[in-house]
Amino acid sequence: MLTDELRERLRGLPTAALSTELRKRGLPSTVIDGVRSLAPGASLVGTAKTLRFIPLREDLFASHGGGQNAQKQAFDAVQPGEVIVIEGRGDATAGTLGDILALRARERGAAGIVTDGAVRDAEVVAGLGLPVFAAGAHPSVLGRRHVPWEADVTIGCGGAAVQPGDVIVGDADGVVVIPPALVNEITAAAEAQEAQDAWVAARVAEGAALDGLFPMNAEWRARYDAERGA
Amino acid sequence: MLTDELRERLRGLPTAALSTELRKRGLPSTVIDGVRSLAPGASLVGTAKTLRFIPLREDLFASHGGGQNAQKQAFDAVQPGEVIVIEGRGDATAGTLGDILALRARERGAAGIVTDGAVRDAEVVAGLGLPVFAAGAHPSVLGRRHVPWEADVTIGCGGAAVQPGDVIVGDADGVVVIPPALVNEITAAAEAQEAQDAWVAARVAEGAALDGLFPMNAEWRARYDAERGA
Amino acid sequence: MLTDELRERLRGLPTAALSTELRKRGLPSTVIDGVRSLAPGASLVGTAKTLRFIPLREDLFASHGGGQNAQKQAFDAVQPGEVIVIEGRGDATAGTLGDILALRARERGAAGIVTDGAVRDAEVVAGLGLPVFAAGAHPSVLGRRHVPWEADVTIGCGGAAVQPGDVIVGDADGVVVIPPALVNEITAAAEAQEAQDAWVAARVAEGAALDGLFPMNAEWRARYDAERGA
Amino acid sequence: MLTDELRERLRGLPTAALSTELRKRGLPSTVIDGVRSLAPGASLVGTAKTLRFIPLREDLFASHGGGQNAQKQAFDAVQPGEVIVIEGRGDATAGTLGDILALRARERGAAGIVTDGAVRDAEVVAGLGLPVFAAGAHPSVLGRRHVPWEADVTIGCGGAAVQPGDVIVGDADGVVVIPPALVNEITAAAEAQEAQDAWVAARVAEGAALDGLFPMNAEWRARYDAERGA
Amino acid sequence: MLTDELRERLRGLPTAALSTELRKRGLPSTVIDGVRSLAPGASLVGTAKTLRFIPLREDLFASHGGGQNAQKQAFDAVQPGEVIVIEGRGDATAGTLGDILALRARERGAAGIVTDGAVRDAEVVAGLGLPVFAAGAHPSVLGRRHVPWEADVTIGCGGAAVQPGDVIVGDADGVVVIPPALVNEITAAAEAQEAQDAWVAARVAEGAALDGLFPMNAEWRARYDAERGA
Amino acid sequence: MLTDELRERLRGLPTAALSTELRKRGLPSTVIDGVRSLAPGASLVGTAKTLRFIPLREDLFASHGGGQNAQKQAFDAVQPGEVIVIEGRGDATAGTLGDILALRARERGAAGIVTDGAVRDAEVVAGLGLPVFAAGAHPSVLGRRHVPWEADVTIGCGGAAVQPGDVIVGDADGVVVIPPALVNEITAAAEAQEAQDAWVAARVAEGAALDGLFPMNAEWRARYDAERGA
Repeated sequence: MLTDELRERLRGLPTAALSTELRKRGLPSTVIDGVRSLAPGASLVGTAKTLRFIPLREDLFASHGGGQNAQKQAFDAVQPGEVIVIEGRGDATAGTLGDILALRARERGAAGIVTDGAVRDAEVVAGLGLPVFAAGAHPSVLGRRHVPWEADVTIGCGGAAVQPGDVIVGDADGVVVIPPALVNEITAAAEAQEAQDAWVAARVAEGAALDGLFPMNAEWRARYDAERGA
Repeated sequence: MLTDELRERLRGLPTAALSTELRKRGLPSTVIDGVRSLAPGASLVGTAKTLRFIPLREDLFASHGGGQNAQKQAFDAVQPGEVIVIEGRGDATAGTLGDILALRARERGAAGIVTDGAVRDAEVVAGLGLPVFAAGAHPSVLGRRHVPWEADVTIGCGGAAVQPGDVIVGDADGVVVIPPALVNEITAAAEAQEAQDAWVAARVAEGAALDGLFPMNAEWRARYDAERGA
Repeated sequence: MLTDELRERLRGLPTAALSTELRKRGLPSTVIDGVRSLAPGASLVGTAKTLRFIPLREDLFASHGGGQNAQKQAFDAVQPGEVIVIEGRGDATAGTLGDILALRARERGAAGIVTDGAVRDAEVVAGLGLPVFAAGAHPSVLGRRHVPWEADVTIGCGGAAVQPGDVIVGDADGVVVIPPALVNEITAAAEAQEAQDAWVAARVAEGAALDGLFPMNAEWRARYDAERGA
Repeated sequence: MLTDELRERLRGLPTAALSTELRKRGLPSTVIDGVRSLAPGASLVGTAKTLRFIPLREDLFASHGGGQNAQKQAFDAVQPGEVIVIEGRGDATAGTLGDILALRARERGAAGIVTDGAVRDAEVVAGLGLPVFAAGAHPSVLGRRHVPWEADVTIGCGGAAVQPGDVIVGDADGVVVIPPALVNEITAAAEAQEAQDAWVAARVAEGAALDGLFPMNAEWRARYDAERGA
Repeated sequence: MLTDELRERLRGLPTAALSTELRKRGLPSTVIDGVRSLAPGASLVGTAKTLRFIPLREDLFASHGGGQNAQKQAFDAVQPGEVIVIEGRGDATAGTLGDILALRARERGAAGIVTDGAVRDAEVVAGLGLPVFAAGAHPSVLGRRHVPWEADVTIGCGGAAVQPGDVIVGDADGVVVIPPALVNEITAAAEAQEAQDAWVAARVAEGAALDGLFPMNAEWRARYDAERGA
Repeated sequence: MLTDELRERLRGLPTAALSTELRKRGLPSTVIDGVRSLAPGASLVGTAKTLRFIPLREDLFASHGGGQNAQKQAFDAVQPGEVIVIEGRGDATAGTLGDILALRARERGAAGIVTDGAVRDAEVVAGLGLPVFAAGAHPSVLGRRHVPWEADVTIGCGGAAVQPGDVIVGDADGVVVIPPALVNEITAAAEAQEAQDAWVAARVAEGAALDGLFPMNAEWRARYDAERGA
């Protein structure tokens, strides 16, 4: 369960720290590559609601692209605190959402949107106050390249597998995916590591060498433990 | 229904002709790009049985990659005349099948295999007499890049959307996907076009100019119709 | 004719809306992919004056690269309201113009510049007040990769065909190309669609679901028509 | 003038040798990258007849893609000994010619075809006895990606600039472009270098070290000159 | 030590089997991606002698590209049973060796050559009887893109790190790198796995399902053990 | 020697001007492609201290990735005025440094950092006041893709060869590499060219045509010389 308290703690943690803890636990692949926040300084935390597109095929677009299609259904159904994560097949030459859908997501209380395709009306979307991470901006509608297909299945986004309910965290470095069963452990470990790294950074700012300090040898470790115990 | 008679007719038709007829009917996107037959001269005709991989994630590979996983289930379940079509995410740096699976498909009577990923044991697989179209060869197992996920869903392969039951035809030019509802019409139209193109080619071989002949003007059309009526 | 009135109306329209109307009329391909404004917030409207580069060949560069070459001729000849559109062959590892040429274009009253290659002196160029859309910045002169070849011919730029006189519109989403014969129709249709989308957005902001509203069903359509008639 | 005698001499020279001589004369860029012969063992020598495609735009395809378009006109007009060189924009996801056009080129006495796009009916084309170098095979017609635009202009193909009349030579290593004014000099120099390299290879086959021999020092040079003088 | 007996055993093993055993031991990254044998059916086994190129820089090429440079020194110094492995920076638009160097390597008793760049005189090189794996063929000399820099250091080739003395094995699937300390263990394990897979393949050829057999359950395992014991 | 006076003069020169002078002297290849400053407006001048990574190999990472590895040694050893230049193999899917290392470099008085890989903690690093040019941001540690290998050797970065001691200059257009022996000459020539270009720009701003002025003909040259002499 991604409680409000856990959300706040995750919001204070860089994706770099979370990525390190995921890697320590045998999960080096849970990073969504190639996406950036449309607005500077965005911080994204939520649980994944997934949406899968397939390559454009005109007959399937005719049967699945109009009306209240899978894309629009997902945006109408998103729950507060969820992040809509879109498999846009890494193709940034068509939008995978636009301003009206992003607005709907914000009104539903969504925590944000991640797509490895492009965003239309990118300037308007960037101004909505909703964290949106994308591979780029493009004026074209999704039907130029995609058919909206289904929601709430396991997808691939930016080279990472994402399941509904996975915890999604994004900042200026990118977006990471945390399996829900690990989120407590990863959060606590990243906090501890961040505290230690902040202390290391303070020593480096005082002129200390990396050698022996980063990572810490026994001497530095003793000093660190002593100061923390004080 | 892809009857035996229809299979034979399709086997006599180049994918170039089928592609042209698909395009005439508003379907320019039904080509699986970037795949080639492992063995020269292969001719592939069958109905799609689909298999979807997702990007490697170590926890999901642990839960879904071992034992009788989705990949192996698909190969055990393939029916005579079916083509296993694999969404290998266009990544040719890991195998998506190997010799034992290809052998199993052949024993089940499969019509062939298409993958936009790579094949392991490519030389052995090429020698099995089963048409296999792939993006390349690679010694690594699929777990290097993929998690086998699910069968019998709509997938993307080589930039084309493929549904279970779609008609798959492959030759030296590549692989095309024909929606089942169109297969009779496309086949008949392609046969007619091939007959006409053969006649045109014969005229070109005799020294005729393309101008007026390809495409035919009224004069050439009249001569063509007359000779066919004879 | 791109009248001043039409220019102003186009300046008020997002490329996303124009792209949609082009697509509705069978023109999904008229987007210049992969270019961004050097300065944030730029709005570009004008008619294309084209410039074509060919791949670097040292003998041809010697005969065509010096003095008042095709590139410089185009910048000296650009007319007020024209947009110089450069076929830079999608290669962002050399500049295709620099600050002096951009300044010359501004002094001539050009409406802007679009290149699918890079720009030199990008910071200076960005500060000139002239909308410039490019694939990136690079310190090298064009002779590193290109030979300036000819102006005022049909070119390819960012995957789109562009003819002299085509209407070019750019914003944060990218750049679209409108055939002159369609510009009145496209503009009017995009204005109508924008008005409707704004009304839809207002309803979404009030909490309305996308279902039935986007696109509008008969009920919403009636309400929309009634409000507009009021 | 590319005389028959010069054609024969060029046919005996590897593109590797010609490329070296071009580079020695300040022309490292005259190689058409990424194209291969459809049939093994092909040897291509001729003068360029160029053909330029632009990116697909549906309105321009409607006006320029049908009937006796620029592509077909070029194939009807090709002269004996000419090589049709096509700017296919490096896009191998559509054919840029098919079997009927290749047959027409052969009937006209063309020396061959080079395209940095794909070929349809590749197996048939490979069997015509006409050297065809391409970036791949694909079943789709050119209208999927291109508009045939104009012939007999300077083009880019595989990253090289090609002018009508340039001398084109192809073998298993690829295709090189020789400016006509240099062809006599390049041919003679390459023959001399080939003779020398053959002699060097014979020494290496006898066990000589590369050091001093490749390139030759004074001692080896004296021996080489002596043997040749004998 | 790579004894003759071990070389023979490795020659009988597919890279697919070796790759699997490497992966089981935590080494999924030891595959040289994107290289193919110039001649069909080649089998490569040897120990790595490395050669590193850096990007073309004209001043460094002048000082390091001529005479008996690092490339030629490596070919003159290669020992019997060694494989020259070249870091060609994944750039296939220039040769990284040609026929005379390949001949010298053969005369020295080299076991083969692997390069992630291109080969000049590819047809001649393919006919020398020396296994050569490359990313392609190209007529240009290495100076078009590279400076030959140094031999006998750790390099990257096709995305894999290679150290002098690593065991290199190549076949139709590609090329794998085995750390010398693991070669006995990997060889024995791959032989055992191959024996088992051959038995599994025989069962599949008899019609057995993959389920329970591949991988083997207790029942199949018992039968396998019994038959091997017979 | 890169004196303080020379550093200041270089800081006043655009990379575009330096690149032009390098090209005039036969060095078109000394640009590090694909890197951008993390913070806007950065100006980088210093001498190269190089760092080379090799592709991830788990056994080599175990032996070389921990403790005071080559990466950390380089950051502990960097001297005032040096620029750490990292061969990150053009792979932006892992960090090649993070905030603590960047801080250490700043404390050591480094002039900046250039990497053709990614940066972790990019927002923090951008705020340190140290010029850092990179191919992107990524949360992952370097061990996801690389093994830190060795410092102070010749490397490739962004397609350019870089030697320890080379002069590195970066601005909004990118990063150029100047061989130390040429730095005085290049600086003086670029200053002269900048003065001339500024004068040309002033004329263009007054409405002068490029024809005859850029480059200058005899008449403009005379006027320029006269004004400068005044």
